[in-house]
Amino acid sequence: MKAWVLGGPHEMKLVEKKVPEPGQSEVLVKVGAIAVCHTDIEVLHHGHPAMIEGKIPFNKDFTMGHEYMGTVVKTGENVDEWQPGDRIAVEVHAGCGRCAKCREGMYTSCHNYSYRSKGHRANGFTTDGGFAEYAINNINTLVAVPDHLSDEVATLTVTAGTAMYGLDVLGGLVAGQSIAVAGGGPIGLMFIALAKALGAAPVIISEPRPDRREMAKHLGADFLIDPLAEDPVEKVRDLTKGKGVDFSVEASGVPIVVNQILHMTNRGGKVCLAAFANGLTPTDLAYVVSNNIYMFGIRGEGNSAVRRAASLLEQKRFDPSPLHTHTFPLEEADKAVSYAENQTDGAIKVVIKMN
Amino acid sequence: MKAWVLGGPHEMKLVEKKVPEPGQSEVLVKVGAIAVCHTDIEVLHHGHPAMIEGKIPFNKDFTMGHEYMGTVVKTGENVDEWQPGDRIAVEVHAGCGRCAKCREGMYTSCHNYSYRSKGHRANGFTTDGGFAEYAINNINTLVAVPDHLSDEVATLTVTAGTAMYGLDVLGGLVAGQSIAVAGGGPIGLMFIALAKALGAAPVIISEPRPDRREMAKHLGADFLIDPLAEDPVEKVRDLTKGKGVDFSVEASGVPIVVNQILHMTNRGGKVCLAAFANGLTPTDLAYVVSNNIYMFGIRGEGNSAVRRAASLLEQKRFDPSPLHTHTFPLEEADKAVSYAENQTDGAIKVVIKMN
Amino acid sequence: MKAWVLGGPHEMKLVEKKVPEPGQSEVLVKVGAIAVCHTDIEVLHHGHPAMIEGKIPFNKDFTMGHEYMGTVVKTGENVDEWQPGDRIAVEVHAGCGRCAKCREGMYTSCHNYSYRSKGHRANGFTTDGGFAEYAINNINTLVAVPDHLSDEVATLTVTAGTAMYGLDVLGGLVAGQSIAVAGGGPIGLMFIALAKALGAAPVIISEPRPDRREMAKHLGADFLIDPLAEDPVEKVRDLTKGKGVDFSVEASGVPIVVNQILHMTNRGGKVCLAAFANGLTPTDLAYVVSNNIYMFGIRGEGNSAVRRAASLLEQKRFDPSPLHTHTFPLEEADKAVSYAENQTDGAIKVVIKMN
Amino acid sequence: MKAWVLGGPHEMKLVEKKVPEPGQSEVLVKVGAIAVCHTDIEVLHHGHPAMIEGKIPFNKDFTMGHEYMGTVVKTGENVDEWQPGDRIAVEVHAGCGRCAKCREGMYTSCHNYSYRSKGHRANGFTTDGGFAEYAINNINTLVAVPDHLSDEVATLTVTAGTAMYGLDVLGGLVAGQSIAVAGGGPIGLMFIALAKALGAAPVIISEPRPDRREMAKHLGADFLIDPLAEDPVEKVRDLTKGKGVDFSVEASGVPIVVNQILHMTNRGGKVCLAAFANGLTPTDLAYVVSNNIYMFGIRGEGNSAVRRAASLLEQKRFDPSPLHTHTFPLEEADKAVSYAENQTDGAIKVVIKMN
Repeated sequence: MKAWVLGGPHEMKLVEKKVPEPGQSEVLVKVGAIAVCHTDIEVLHHGHPAMIEGKIPFNKDFTMGHEYMGTVVKTGENVDEWQPGDRIAVEVHAGCGRCAKCREGMYTSCHNYSYRSKGHRANGFTTDGGFAEYAINNINTLVAVPDHLSDEVATLTVTAGTAMYGLDVLGGLVAGQSIAVAGGGPIGLMFIALAKALGAAPVIISEPRPDRREMAKHLGADFLIDPLAEDPVEKVRDLTKGKGVDFSVEASGVPIVVNQILHMTNRGGKVCLAAFANGLTPTDLAYVVSNNIYMFGIRGEGNSAVRRAASLLEQKRFDPSPLHTHTFPLEEADKAVSYAENQTDGAIKVVIKMN
Repeated sequence: MKAWVLGGPHEMKLVEKKVPEPGQSEVLVKVGAIAVCHTDIEVLHHGHPAMIEGKIPFNKDFTMGHEYMGTVVKTGENVDEWQPGDRIAVEVHAGCGRCAKCREGMYTSCHNYSYRSKGHRANGFTTDGGFAEYAINNINTLVAVPDHLSDEVATLTVTAGTAMYGLDVLGGLVAGQSIAVAGGGPIGLMFIALAKALGAAPVIISEPRPDRREMAKHLGADFLIDPLAEDPVEKVRDLTKGKGVDFSVEASGVPIVVNQILHMTNRGGKVCLAAFANGLTPTDLAYVVSNNIYMFGIRGEGNSAVRRAASLLEQKRFDPSPLHTHTFPLEEADKAVSYAENQTDGAIKVVIKMN
Repeated sequence: MKAWVLGGPHEMKLVEKKVPEPGQSEVLVKVGAIAVCHTDIEVLHHGHPAMIEGKIPFNKDFTMGHEYMGTVVKTGENVDEWQPGDRIAVEVHAGCGRCAKCREGMYTSCHNYSYRSKGHRANGFTTDGGFAEYAINNINTLVAVPDHLSDEVATLTVTAGTAMYGLDVLGGLVAGQSIAVAGGGPIGLMFIALAKALGAAPVIISEPRPDRREMAKHLGADFLIDPLAEDPVEKVRDLTKGKGVDFSVEASGVPIVVNQILHMTNRGGKVCLAAFANGLTPTDLAYVVSNNIYMFGIRGEGNSAVRRAASLLEQKRFDPSPLHTHTFPLEEADKAVSYAENQTDGAIKVVIKMN
Repeated sequence: MKAWVLGGPHEMKLVEKKVPEPGQSEVLVKVGAIAVCHTDIEVLHHGHPAMIEGKIPFNKDFTMGHEYMGTVVKTGENVDEWQPGDRIAVEVHAGCGRCAKCREGMYTSCHNYSYRSKGHRANGFTTDGGFAEYAINNINTLVAVPDHLSDEVATLTVTAGTAMYGLDVLGGLVAGQSIAVAGGGPIGLMFIALAKALGAAPVIISEPRPDRREMAKHLGADFLIDPLAEDPVEKVRDLTKGKGVDFSVEASGVPIVVNQILHMTNRGGKVCLAAFANGLTPTDLAYVVSNNIYMFGIRGEGNSAVRRAASLLEQKRFDPSPLHTHTFPLEEADKAVSYAENQTDGAIKVVIKMN
């Protein structure tokens, strides 16, 4: 089969690989489409942090990509949960199931992260991913895709699940509560879409790019803030009778935005950190303590939130299709990655569609 | 009655005031003893932030002090919850009971903080406190003091309650889980004592002063780290099979310690921020996000945790008496504050004992 | 003013009363409309349990009714949260704010239930209610009513809030999860409407009356079960791959239905008990234990859930107007109660509309 | 090796079996001692419910017993978490790790309960247990045993873990809160011991047998109630200022006791159902609803609570040794079961000790 693998740093190349065989608790997926995620670009340039921890050599024939969908074509031994022909999208993480974290349900924090022999998989991070014609998936990582979703849009299921997970860790009771999101990339926009779908009000976005603010409006934002044109903290306080929002989400990865997000947040409010910059971020922890604020870092898409996000997609509670802006064939995956990296032509989600 | 009030900045003076009358839901307390808290020193020099927000002039005859105990001597209208003669210690905060935060039980984040007319009290912060012969308290803020506790030690009840509140917001299930505390001041030491009493293991302290490390050992710490002599992060990881602790507490208020605390914490672990430095703290939020870490700022002593801490004191589950190092009469309150501020003669908790 | 008060058992009578004055934390409401609740009928025939506990005589000029809306016409001292002219609906319970339960936010379980002098109000239960031209309300019990809701429909806000509270205690994360409701009365139907609005799937109702099943369908039920025509447990298991639903709600008050609800529920599932029959109910607790099931009794409308339900109404996320079936003027309140009691002419929600 | 297996109903027989081989994620344990549990007696007479569901024939050479301890003697492939020589006690349940329940950490409610081929184990229930010289265990089910615990007492670790799990599902914050336990069997007594160790106050037991009440006192009960001599509900209310306890535990399995436990419980209180009678139990659900009571059924020992209970044992926070009353050699396992079943000679925990 064809697969795009890591070469050296900054290099990805198209090679021929053998179609893998599904083992215990696994299925073989014929990939239908795969989206480029910001993390893919990180992996391309720096390797995945967990790969390096786990001593996986940088360029060892590793297939990239984790936001894909496709069709089950073969099942491993004792697998009756899925059947050949099932149309599915995927989560990234299958925990080892044997460490303390997995046993408490926190599988994206698995203590055996990257230890394939103990059962852990993180496709596209530490195990082969989906920039290929076929991929192996643990049955835990599959969710059904409804007929009415195109292959391209279905790749966004895992992105929606990540935002759903973020709302879960915030306690989930966003209905009738206020929420602000900073950053209108795919994750931030999904937070907007899901918060709106779940009844949050008002839903506020702070994002400097006008096209992304418009996208946020389309997905459900009630108020749009351009943080370069007005003070986003003051604006949020104006919109919330001076109190700040009940929930907030940092999805920009821009250090200066962290304190904006904190200062937008009401006493006793909750903050989800869904993005980050490398290095240390100057943070107003005095404000956090004085105001009983709780901050929740989230890694990936835990708590089976992808399944619930997929249910909302099936129910047509929100429409992520505008996030999908560009399509390329598998042969042009490198070009797809370049578009995503450089936001060429306003690219948000660039998808590779198999033939 | 005699009372120490704020003068101008850095000035406290002993004056005569009228004994106040308890209103609806209130009692009059004859103060027996009061401890000096770090926050008192802040109030003395800068005023309480909430005082300033609420436009209370800095030096308007305001009685300082919030960590006191005493005896109920008079009850307000319709008060049958307490009787004259009851020996009590106090919490700081009585919420307004009418804002959204109070209604959800988060009374230390009351939206009417400092609005006395709407029912809020924070004695020693925004309403008259306990550096005086008498003080008014909302009935919500009283807890019974058992006979076996001396007046001096009973003043520490609210400090214990603050640590209990911190463990509450961490989820409370510390039994059989590991915990690390940075900072061996009164709050940090109380976290040590309570975590031990509740079955945490191991209990680890990181504190540069040897006398405070010894105090931590006395109160239940299993391992003592001198962060100036060894790398506290490495040491904690050694003690936890490389994983880091399940729970951690920042009680030092030293900016550089924040990242130590974060890096000591296991994936999916929880961090309580119980102290802070003014200004921005360079914080490794990348670590927080990558490791599913949750950070909980706590203000004061919510969730009626003081009541539960008082119960543990009554049960003699821990002995905070070593924290009490010095005693002065009411007339020398200024000297007491000076001792506490300068940690004169190894002072930890300096207590004013009434005659 | 005119007011309907309790006479002896089974007797309600229209009298002239003095318009009351709002006190501290209170407002005077000019009632616009009020719905008849099943509990009103209980109060009429048996007195409210809390009235009797609190030694309030059965027939002492007590104004009935708690599901009302209206307009603020006067505010008490220090009240700036609401202004004359505000259009509002009401919650039933204002806790005392001084007991342990209120302090933890559980105000519908106030330990001073029925002690008016300590600040508790439960309008229509222990304090004068809304079958009258005017009523006093604690500011905590008011929620804004949007323009697009008619007076009649706005009375249903508290009913919606009760269902929202039930979903809250179930953990709230119903999006993408299955739910079954037994009983298509106003509360059960509101559970259907809110579960659907919050993304639950599938949403299932079991109700013997065809008109109420149709109402449930209109409000969002995906599957309708007639428990007299088919086995509701078997049917729910068919709809959930044999597993049972994640969440279930007993809203019928029929003893035999309790075990149906339990047996419909998945291992580790959660059950809300929102109705009950008097006396002892034969309950399959062996099933509860063997299957890690949690059962949550709910009293009234806690957790400020009415506010969040009101937000969903404002957002038009669900339309409760079909529940409103009949309207009478204040002078015919006895007839309204009779219609509600006997479900005359298919009555679900019977509303009294002021002139 | 020697092993006691099920014959027909009511029959257990000693046979020779082959020593099994540990597979992936498994170890071989040389059994040191095993206690007789009430469930073993159920299995002997009726088969385990899950066995029957899973179509495991009643008498197919099945080794009974699940409360054991021993020594790891061999590890399966890729197992480095444990080493030969490790002294361990065991939990019963290893979930499949691939169903929705396991993925959320609720492994005792595994949807693949009894499907060995999908990875589920419940030793002594659906897979071979510990009335034998050797047993296979999933690594997830092992906890370390400290040197100071005898083999006999170490078998009680899983019992302690079950009580710890019960306190977990009640929210865990029992410190300084009141708790009542009905039933002084091993589970009920462990609830007493753990609640006391975790700071609950007061700790109350209701139990008709005087020897078991004394045992409860020894383990930490503050108040002993003989429900045949006084009204346990009235007594508990006397002890709690009329309010009832914050937490309660039904550990008797006697139907009439369920309502006693409910009526002992405060408004907004929480009830753990840790035992049950077969058939329907007349239950005062009206009380549950009117008082915002939550009831939590618990199956087995989830949430890795056994590990935390083992930590408390290691810390010597409670001493379960009085529960161990009788010892027999493996050859007399049938006699041991008979003693346990008939409570011969005051038997509480009857232990089989290997040579």
